[in-house]
Amino acid sequence: MEYDTITAISTPMGEGAIAIVRLSGDEAVQIAENIFKSPSGKKLSEEKSHTIHYGHLIDPKTGEIVEEVMLSLMRGPKTFTREDVVEINCHGGIVSVNRVLQLVLRNGARLAEPGEFTKRAFLNGRIDLSQAEAVMDLIRAKTDRAMNVALGQMEGKLSRLIAQLRQALIETLAHVEVNIDYPEYDDVEEMTIPVLLEKCSWVRDEIEKLLQTSSQGKILREGLSTVILGRPNVGKSSLLNSLVHENKAIVTDIAGTTRDIIEEYVNVRGVPLRLVDTAGIRETEDIVERIGVERSRQVLKEADLILLVLNSAEELSQEDERLFETIQNMDFIVVVNKTDLPRQIDIEKVEQLANGRPVVTTSLLQEQGVIELEEAIAKTFFEGQVEANDLTYVSNARHIALLHQAKDTIEDAINAANDGVPVDMIQIDVTKTWELLGEIVGDTVQESLINQLFSQFCLGK
Amino acid sequence: MEYDTITAISTPMGEGAIAIVRLSGDEAVQIAENIFKSPSGKKLSEEKSHTIHYGHLIDPKTGEIVEEVMLSLMRGPKTFTREDVVEINCHGGIVSVNRVLQLVLRNGARLAEPGEFTKRAFLNGRIDLSQAEAVMDLIRAKTDRAMNVALGQMEGKLSRLIAQLRQALIETLAHVEVNIDYPEYDDVEEMTIPVLLEKCSWVRDEIEKLLQTSSQGKILREGLSTVILGRPNVGKSSLLNSLVHENKAIVTDIAGTTRDIIEEYVNVRGVPLRLVDTAGIRETEDIVERIGVERSRQVLKEADLILLVLNSAEELSQEDERLFETIQNMDFIVVVNKTDLPRQIDIEKVEQLANGRPVVTTSLLQEQGVIELEEAIAKTFFEGQVEANDLTYVSNARHIALLHQAKDTIEDAINAANDGVPVDMIQIDVTKTWELLGEIVGDTVQESLINQLFSQFCLGK
Repeated sequence: MEYDTITAISTPMGEGAIAIVRLSGDEAVQIAENIFKSPSGKKLSEEKSHTIHYGHLIDPKTGEIVEEVMLSLMRGPKTFTREDVVEINCHGGIVSVNRVLQLVLRNGARLAEPGEFTKRAFLNGRIDLSQAEAVMDLIRAKTDRAMNVALGQMEGKLSRLIAQLRQALIETLAHVEVNIDYPEYDDVEEMTIPVLLEKCSWVRDEIEKLLQTSSQGKILREGLSTVILGRPNVGKSSLLNSLVHENKAIVTDIAGTTRDIIEEYVNVRGVPLRLVDTAGIRETEDIVERIGVERSRQVLKEADLILLVLNSAEELSQEDERLFETIQNMDFIVVVNKTDLPRQIDIEKVEQLANGRPVVTTSLLQEQGVIELEEAIAKTFFEGQVEANDLTYVSNARHIALLHQAKDTIEDAINAANDGVPVDMIQIDVTKTWELLGEIVGDTVQESLINQLFSQFCLGK
Repeated sequence: MEYDTITAISTPMGEGAIAIVRLSGDEAVQIAENIFKSPSGKKLSEEKSHTIHYGHLIDPKTGEIVEEVMLSLMRGPKTFTREDVVEINCHGGIVSVNRVLQLVLRNGARLAEPGEFTKRAFLNGRIDLSQAEAVMDLIRAKTDRAMNVALGQMEGKLSRLIAQLRQALIETLAHVEVNIDYPEYDDVEEMTIPVLLEKCSWVRDEIEKLLQTSSQGKILREGLSTVILGRPNVGKSSLLNSLVHENKAIVTDIAGTTRDIIEEYVNVRGVPLRLVDTAGIRETEDIVERIGVERSRQVLKEADLILLVLNSAEELSQEDERLFETIQNMDFIVVVNKTDLPRQIDIEKVEQLANGRPVVTTSLLQEQGVIELEEAIAKTFFEGQVEANDLTYVSNARHIALLHQAKDTIEDAINAANDGVPVDMIQIDVTKTWELLGEIVGDTVQESLINQLFSQFCLGK
């Protein structure tokens, strides 16, 4: 396929030693050659693939030096996009990298859309859609475990499994086809239903296995939305600080929004906790009051995990009990804090209210109990979990939704077969399942969806 | 020289398409080879310099895949540090790049100190100290002009000029030496003083020329610390937004501090305005009240430029006049805003209070007058300025201080020569000047200073 030449800044914005402006497309080498001057005067287009060249970028219009650069020349098809790729390594300043980008744009390249490099890798057949999606997951991964899941998916782990399932369905459809084409052979009919049932059941079981990993996969991918709840002065901000301190928070400033909305990710035994409204806790030590009843209900509703903090040195208050009531149907862990002070709280009552959920006692002041709390968090979400490497995780909401649909259609097929429905009717459900699974890897997916998916990528990828 | 192998993340932290972990030192290639596996099984150590290799990083202990990478192999001396350099291009996520760094560290590399790569380039003789300092200036440059100054300095523009001056001083010293060694030749003595005076005067003139660029150079390098001042509701936040909106602010979150302290840089005609306490303006629309009298005095004192905003639709208040009084000895520009409303303010009085400083009328609501304001700002600081390319700018406070000292000592020498002081006394001042100029390029500088300078660099450079 032939495409115009696209370009974008491929490193995060900010001050750093090195930044990269990437070009991909038919004209990539020519555009770079026109603006590049090496001390030896060598021509880029005559250089070998996968080589690195030192020199200066010169604006051909003015003759002025724009930057001192290292230039990586990579000819297709052995590149990220399968097209000719040139990576310009320049100094990592904001002005420097923008200047290089502007120069490249003025000399024939077009600014890439978000994810367009990866989209080309997909459209040029180097990777399938689930692999392309994993590229972005890998970049956004908040823990090692999440990265392993993304890496596995990028390397084609999920793709290969989906291909197997689809292969089984195709074989089933071939059988059915024979049956429809030669209805006079009774033995084919007899053969068809058992084969169909066997293959379809296997596909359903495999889909179910995948779906069983999905809730954990989704947590690994998106983080566990966690709210720290409790009355004022029970130690919410101490808990926050303990978690952040022990696990090095990754703070993400969400682009395009005000500075208030900052997500903090904390890596607890491989589980990425996404701490909600930590700014609120830090500032006022009272999330509920600060964000108002309406908004706080919303925050609670969207949370995957509540850490309810109680004060061990005070009796259980009505307010505490109301908090228990509010979260009664949710996943929560009770943190009984301030055990360094004489205990006043009725632990049995707490356990009763916790209703089976973990109760951890801590003295955050004396740095006690945090490890136990972390264990409780990991256990709640990864009980009896096999190591990430052994499993093919499904983590992407789009994949999960498609798998649920595929499971429904394949079950329809199985039920129909059991009920003696004619095979040509069953064929429709099997075909539908094949198509739904194909959407995961981008085989049977619409262009508009592809465009929408890649638009969620970051620029330069 | 031989050094151990250092490593660091060389791209800005954050989510991006690509991140780079750089290694430099004798073991760089070997360490990379031990953790790298290409599909073809080729050995890095057998590959040519300046080539790029696709493959996976594998943890040799566990055999697990750590990342999918592109690896750039560059053997010294044609590298940034003159040592063997390997750059590992991995996916730009926070977890991904940290994982690669950890793997490299576990396999024999040492974490580089801030600026250590550039320090090695300096210690290995590839660049001098002023060039090394320019590397960091280039990364931190906030405008095109500032980047041109840094680029020129990095390419050795300042170094060459300093070398010329020092050469002239060495020649003078040689003359003096002859005079001291052969005092019996009267004609040498007669020759010496005029030659000395001529050379020293030339050196002084050149130093003065350099110093004339220094105030502008410093502004280009560090930005013009700018405060927007005015009573509540005169339009301070509108002015801020206009400047930011028209010029795309660069927001710098200062590492290690709280989130409040955010610098916003706005590029006004090549002048980087560093807007002070913009968060305060945005939040409360009243900087003075918010930050308290004491702190606001301090902010004003440190400002290079005040933008005093007045309300055209109100009469000049006592508070306005007090503000004029406070800033009377500073650089300021008066912005008479809200000209869309019927004028109440006494413009003649304003002009009188402005006492020669520019007065610009604006209607920020109707987007009028901002261009005129920007022109006034540029004119105030770059009146009659030649283009950056024609001039060697001194922008670094360390260089400026050394040049001032060098100017003083060379003037002492000139005065002494004029006063008939014996040449061997003059020799001391000339030698001192030569040393001071040498400190700029790092020729006569102490190790402790070098360490301190490079420690201000960012990690990975």
